[in-house]
Amino acid sequence: MSAPKTVTAALIIIGNEILSGRTIDKNLPFLATRLNDIGVQLRECRVVADVEDEIVQAVNALRRKYDYVFTTGGIGPTHDDITADSVAKAFGVPIGHHPEAVEILKSHYAKTGAELNEARLRMARIPQGGTMVENPISRAPGFQIENVFVLAGIPAVAQAMFESLKHRIAGGAPVRSTATAVHLGEGVIARGLGELQARYPDVDIGSYPFYRGGRYGTSLVCRSADEARLKDATGELRTLLSGLGGEPLPDVNDPA
Amino acid sequence: MSAPKTVTAALIIIGNEILSGRTIDKNLPFLATRLNDIGVQLRECRVVADVEDEIVQAVNALRRKYDYVFTTGGIGPTHDDITADSVAKAFGVPIGHHPEAVEILKSHYAKTGAELNEARLRMARIPQGGTMVENPISRAPGFQIENVFVLAGIPAVAQAMFESLKHRIAGGAPVRSTATAVHLGEGVIARGLGELQARYPDVDIGSYPFYRGGRYGTSLVCRSADEARLKDATGELRTLLSGLGGEPLPDVNDPA
Repeated sequence: MSAPKTVTAALIIIGNEILSGRTIDKNLPFLATRLNDIGVQLRECRVVADVEDEIVQAVNALRRKYDYVFTTGGIGPTHDDITADSVAKAFGVPIGHHPEAVEILKSHYAKTGAELNEARLRMARIPQGGTMVENPISRAPGFQIENVFVLAGIPAVAQAMFESLKHRIAGGAPVRSTATAVHLGEGVIARGLGELQARYPDVDIGSYPFYRGGRYGTSLVCRSADEARLKDATGELRTLLSGLGGEPLPDVNDPA
Repeated sequence: MSAPKTVTAALIIIGNEILSGRTIDKNLPFLATRLNDIGVQLRECRVVADVEDEIVQAVNALRRKYDYVFTTGGIGPTHDDITADSVAKAFGVPIGHHPEAVEILKSHYAKTGAELNEARLRMARIPQGGTMVENPISRAPGFQIENVFVLAGIPAVAQAMFESLKHRIAGGAPVRSTATAVHLGEGVIARGLGELQARYPDVDIGSYPFYRGGRYGTSLVCRSADEARLKDATGELRTLLSGLGGEPLPDVNDPA
């Protein structure tokens, strides 16, 4: 039996509001988790400004390096929404109004009574060769072109779009993980942990120090697509920690 | 009088735990805000895995493109802490134990009674030509080499390290901003906003839709290092919004 394929993805977060610190991104943790559920590993993320050259460079660097690329942000009707044009430029194709997307917007604005003006019609533009990604929330669609998926920045809309498109993704084996926290410093655990990692190259063992309630501790996370190996490594890890005097603590989700 | 210099920075967040979605990054919004306070604009961020080649490539791409580069994560004592070695490799210099850093760790572990073992001593290694960045919290230092600052991943430690190093940064003019939220859709505002942006190329005008309490709205953010121009653009923006029937709402910090 051949090993399950590793399928990878990258995320490009487009928006000055993230880089100014004003808006806290919520799309990375959502996509990381949901992609892993369908067997895709998020390997890299870039946050870039609303600048065409930056978006073009990031799209072209990452679409060649990973199986899938997702972008969030910059697909609204205002002057700073330049993602669709930038992605068209990255692929070297023209961009125009997509007939089905235009129909969706016409029907939506007819219902709401608002005017489908030129700015709003811009949201129906999709690069040549692209296909729509449905937006069940605010209707204006995202799109897919080759292995690149272009989503909205608003987390609720990005999440709904992801659910619309996920059947198009061919995932590999999902990565499973175990987390074990102890009130031991990383420095005490380091040697034995390094030896354990060397014996389990197919299990990714991460060590994350935390400081909470006045006490230092460490969260140890084992991750692997092979459940049997994951179980064995976690068992050995817990034996190692007990031998060092560390009693496992209740689960912690965010060690930082 | 010449215009104040624009000073730029990039951030490299190093850590599988961010890319897995398990840990939510808090260093980007902190550094973005504090850097802006001292006149440095964060222009790009990359989140990379604990993989040497990825770190080396990111460091070398960004240190040539921006005035300053900050990294967070991967400077502890365990096998997955490879940031210092990767940065040394990016600069093509050897890495070794820094005598002053060793003394700090000796003194710290003598006080706490813990053993200064080989793993902990690894935290005193700094690439040749680098200088220490003090860590007033858990003592193990970060470092600076040329325009690259290497900080811890734990937010409290990264923040304390930033306060230790900020006097080394030569900033330009801080960017000021105004935020105005209205219960108007972006599509209604878009045309007038685009015209306003065209008349104020030196003010960055961002438009961020939000959905809260069952109602859609838009936050308009103006940003500029020129306070007079910022004030004028914001005044014109508010006139535009009033003309469209939009009454400014109470301040919102996070439109998403």
